[in-house]
Amino acid sequence: MKIGVIGGGQLGRMMALAGIPLGLRFYFLDPSTEACAGDVGTLVLGAYDDTAAIDRLLSLVDVVTFEFESVPAETVAYIAQSKPVFPTADALAIARERWAEKSLFQSLDIPTAPVYKIDSQQDVVDAFAQIGVPAIVKTRTLGYDGKGQRLLKSDADIAGLFDALGGVPLIYEGFVDFDYEVSCIAVRSADGETRVYPLVENVHRQGILHCSTPLADHRLQPQATAIAKQVLDHMQYVGVLTFEFFVQGDHLVANEVAPRVHNSGHWTIEGAQCSQFENHVRAISGLPLGSTQMLGHSMMFNLIGCPIDVPALLAVPGSCVHDYRKAPKPGRKIGHVTVIAQGPDELRERAAQLAPLINNDLSGE
Amino acid sequence: MKIGVIGGGQLGRMMALAGIPLGLRFYFLDPSTEACAGDVGTLVLGAYDDTAAIDRLLSLVDVVTFEFESVPAETVAYIAQSKPVFPTADALAIARERWAEKSLFQSLDIPTAPVYKIDSQQDVVDAFAQIGVPAIVKTRTLGYDGKGQRLLKSDADIAGLFDALGGVPLIYEGFVDFDYEVSCIAVRSADGETRVYPLVENVHRQGILHCSTPLADHRLQPQATAIAKQVLDHMQYVGVLTFEFFVQGDHLVANEVAPRVHNSGHWTIEGAQCSQFENHVRAISGLPLGSTQMLGHSMMFNLIGCPIDVPALLAVPGSCVHDYRKAPKPGRKIGHVTVIAQGPDELRERAAQLAPLINNDLSGE
Repeated sequence: MKIGVIGGGQLGRMMALAGIPLGLRFYFLDPSTEACAGDVGTLVLGAYDDTAAIDRLLSLVDVVTFEFESVPAETVAYIAQSKPVFPTADALAIARERWAEKSLFQSLDIPTAPVYKIDSQQDVVDAFAQIGVPAIVKTRTLGYDGKGQRLLKSDADIAGLFDALGGVPLIYEGFVDFDYEVSCIAVRSADGETRVYPLVENVHRQGILHCSTPLADHRLQPQATAIAKQVLDHMQYVGVLTFEFFVQGDHLVANEVAPRVHNSGHWTIEGAQCSQFENHVRAISGLPLGSTQMLGHSMMFNLIGCPIDVPALLAVPGSCVHDYRKAPKPGRKIGHVTVIAQGPDELRERAAQLAPLINNDLSGE
Repeated sequence: MKIGVIGGGQLGRMMALAGIPLGLRFYFLDPSTEACAGDVGTLVLGAYDDTAAIDRLLSLVDVVTFEFESVPAETVAYIAQSKPVFPTADALAIARERWAEKSLFQSLDIPTAPVYKIDSQQDVVDAFAQIGVPAIVKTRTLGYDGKGQRLLKSDADIAGLFDALGGVPLIYEGFVDFDYEVSCIAVRSADGETRVYPLVENVHRQGILHCSTPLADHRLQPQATAIAKQVLDHMQYVGVLTFEFFVQGDHLVANEVAPRVHNSGHWTIEGAQCSQFENHVRAISGLPLGSTQMLGHSMMFNLIGCPIDVPALLAVPGSCVHDYRKAPKPGRKIGHVTVIAQGPDELRERAAQLAPLINNDLSGE
C-alpha cells in the first residue's frame, strides 16, 4: 500500500520509518526540495493548495494523511473526492478551529476552561466582563507552540486587543490554575477499535515543548482514556488524535486536540510496544492496531535550534537520538532524544546526564 | 555522514532504517532496480565488480560497508584505495573462506570440529581416513544456508565427491554431535570497544534459518563473550561480526563467522536496547556503541517464499512485522516477524499463536 502525506517534515519522516517495515511506501507533498521526509520516501514538490501537485500525489497513492492540521479545507475536500483521507475533513475542521474544538468538548460534558468566542473588540469587552483575568486570548486557527497568543493580566491588556492580534477570529479562555500539563495520544481504527497511550507530562519553555515523560498508571488515566474514546467515537475518527489536558487536582481540563501524531508522543518509538507513528499508519491502512503499553521508562527532550552533537548524546546510556536532518535555525525543532531505562531511578540518573547536553536555541524562528 | 553499502537487500534496508534517525544517509550498490533497500536510500545500479558503478558510489559516500561476505576481493581492495571500508579486506578474506576461518579459530585455541583442507579427491580420501564419518564437506567459499554442502554417512559417499561438488576448494569437517546451535552477534568500534549480544538459539529447516530466540543469562554466555572479544580484537574488526557455535554440553564449538549483521540478530530491532543494525552503522561511522542488553523476551521467525499476510501476523499481540517488499519466490527470505513479551510464559503463548501463521515455502530458489 502507498501512503500519501501532506507535509514532508519530521512527522512524515517518522511515519515512514515506522511504516516501511510493514511493506508500506510513502509519498510526501511539500513545497521544499529540502523536506526531511525525502530521505524515506518520494517528494512531490508543490504548495499545499497546488492542484496539479496534489493530482500528482493522488496518482501515486492509495490513501492520504496529514502531518499538520492547518491544511486548507479546500485541499482536504479536493483530495477526498478521489482517495480515502484520514483524518477526515470533518475531523480536521474541528481540530483546526479552537472554538469548534471547545464546543465539541462542552457538548460531550468534557470540562474545559471558561471560553468566549471573539469576533470584534466588543466581544473582547464582553468576555472580560464575563470571564475576567487572568485569561488567554488565542487565534482560533493556525496557532501552535505559543504563537498567536496573548496573556491578559488586567483590564489594561484588553484595550485594542482585537486589532492588535490582527482582527482575526479569536477565542478568550479563562485561565486554568493547573498543576501541570499532560497529553494523551489515542488511536482509532476504521472498524472502531480505540487504544490509548499512557498520559504524558509535558514541560514547555517559551511556549515550545521542552520535554515529555510518560506516566505509568497515573490516577487520571481512566478519565483520559474515557474522554479519548468518547471524542474519537463521536468524530468517527481514524488514526492518531492527541489530547492536551491541564491537570487540576483530581480532574482533567481539556485544552485542545491535534488531529495527528504529536511531539509529546515521540517517546513511543522506543518507550511503547507500538509507536504512535506505526499505530497511525496501521489505522489509516486498515491494519490491526498495536499495543500502546509502555515498555520500561522513558523521557523525551526536544532538540531545538542548535546543531546536534550526536556522539555526545549517544554517549549517555539508554539515549536514542533522532536527528531530522533539518538545518538548525533558532526555534526550529530539528531533532529529539529519548532516554530509556528499566526503572524510574535509572531514568532520573540518565536524564540528569542528558539534560546538560540539551543546548536549545529558543530565540524564535 | 553518508554510508555506502555494497548490496541493496534487506540487510542494507534495515541498516538504513536504523541509521536514518541518527542523521545518516544511505547509498546502495546493487545490480537490480528492484533492490528493496531502494525504499530507504539511493540505489546506484551496477554489478559488484563494475568499476564505473563503484566509482559513482564512492563519489557519493564517506564510508563503505557490505551486506554480504562474497564480495570480490578486487572490489574491496579497489574501494579501500579511496574510502574507509568496514569490515576491512583482511576481515572479509578470513570470513569468506572456511579454511581461513577455522585456522584463525584454531590459532586462538577456540574449539572447532576436526577439519581437513580439500583440494583434490586424494585429500577427500585422506580426510576420510583421518576424520571418518559422519562428516560434512563444504565449499570453502560462497556457501550459505546449506548450499554447497554434502553430508557424508559412509565411505560410499566419498567416491567422486571432489568432482561432484564442482572441483572447487572444499573443507572436510568432522560431525559435531551438538545439542543445539547458537549464534552470537558482537560489535566492535574503531577505538576498540567491544559489545556482545546475548546468545541466540537458532532452529533451521532444510538448511535455512527458521527461528531465533535470544537466551537470557545463558551459562555459556561468558565463553561466547570471551571468544567474540578475542577474535574481534585479533582482527582489529570494526562493525558487527556474527559467530555461529554448536553447543556441546558445557562447551561452545565454533562453526563459522559472518562479517556482517545477521539473520539471527533481527530480534535485536525490538528485543535489544540498540539493534545490531544501529550498532553496525554506529561502529562504521565512529559513533559510540549502544547497549546490547535484552529488553523483555523475544523470538524471531523468518518469512520465506510465500506472500506475507501482514494483517494476520499483526493481529497476534506483541508481533512486529518486517516485510522487505521482495517478490515472493520459493526459498527466498522476504520478511520476518519478531514477537515480544514481558516474560517467557507470555512469549511461549504468543509464539504458539504466531507459529501456525508462518507458511514458508522452502522448496528452493
